[in-house]
Amino acid sequence: MKEKLCWHGSAQLAPVPVVLAGCGDGSVRNPYNLITIGWCGMVCSEPPMLGIGVRPERFSFGLIRRTGEFTVNLPPKALAETVDYCGVVSGKAIDKFKERQLTPLPGSQVKAPIVAECPIALECRVNRTLELGSHWYFIADILAVRVDPELVDEKGKLDMERADLISYAHGHYYEQGPCLGHFGYSVRKKN
Amino acid sequence: MKEKLCWHGSAQLAPVPVVLAGCGDGSVRNPYNLITIGWCGMVCSEPPMLGIGVRPERFSFGLIRRTGEFTVNLPPKALAETVDYCGVVSGKAIDKFKERQLTPLPGSQVKAPIVAECPIALECRVNRTLELGSHWYFIADILAVRVDPELVDEKGKLDMERADLISYAHGHYYEQGPCLGHFGYSVRKKN
Repeated sequence: MKEKLCWHGSAQLAPVPVVLAGCGDGSVRNPYNLITIGWCGMVCSEPPMLGIGVRPERFSFGLIRRTGEFTVNLPPKALAETVDYCGVVSGKAIDKFKERQLTPLPGSQVKAPIVAECPIALECRVNRTLELGSHWYFIADILAVRVDPELVDEKGKLDMERADLISYAHGHYYEQGPCLGHFGYSVRKKN
Repeated sequence: MKEKLCWHGSAQLAPVPVVLAGCGDGSVRNPYNLITIGWCGMVCSEPPMLGIGVRPERFSFGLIRRTGEFTVNLPPKALAETVDYCGVVSGKAIDKFKERQLTPLPGSQVKAPIVAECPIALECRVNRTLELGSHWYFIADILAVRVDPELVDEKGKLDMERADLISYAHGHYYEQGPCLGHFGYSVRKKN
């Protein structure tokens, strides 16, 4: 085994989720918008909380700051190009819902829109805001999980593989590959 | 399109990274240990920072609290079962490096060990600690990135696909699937 190279610190965690954050409340001041987020992660299980990193210069930043809410929509493979698009164009000038023919649905707990075309959506309310540097990190309570009925199997359990989710690594989008095992399989070999 | 189901909030973000965090400094009080982390995400690009969520009852929690350091090792597909194992057994009783025949290497910037068998490792120093609930969230500066020379292509660029990384979604481990596009491809169709 060769010795590892030693590089300066950089954002090389991978793969990461790549999600469409829905924000705004539909008012004139805070119109609905979508922003693609790769700096997103679970931060706590109970209470369920996640975080998203957003640059202050992004249009969505002000929407989230003013409303204190956003949604995290998990996009399927079929929306990969839309995910990319929503990460490179600004909602200041363009209605991304309209442009990409996406359907905003009302949240059950928040005024921020969920995306009908995403099989899973998390409704979030900001709990803490951290000013870090290029990005501010919004830590939020997950108030509700919205799921397409098609993802629920005959036993009533969520079958997330049906969602065809995607990930992001080093500047590229990937579909999910084959399953390698379930949690605990290393010690429950007989299952 | 049917209406979405509405469930209580829960930890349904997916896919998420699944990494081996290396901790301890090799002393009697703080022996080297590994813990599998799924609640992990980038939080800032500049300065480069990431976060990991750890339950206070885990053996690694005290190691990270006392040393203020950890490493994030990105495991290849070949280590999926080891990743699972390091998430379900405690380092209180077992030397996971020895048990799973992994090689701890000294960090360049931290005393926490990196894992030789992981193609990419991030050396991290805790910057902020958030007490959230079931998990505490450690936000850390990424001080160095360690990379296997085999991942660098003939142009000197990191080819992360060679790392065969894995992800975690709803209790299952997955290998990475085919690439769907690169950042910006939706607006640079000619490339």
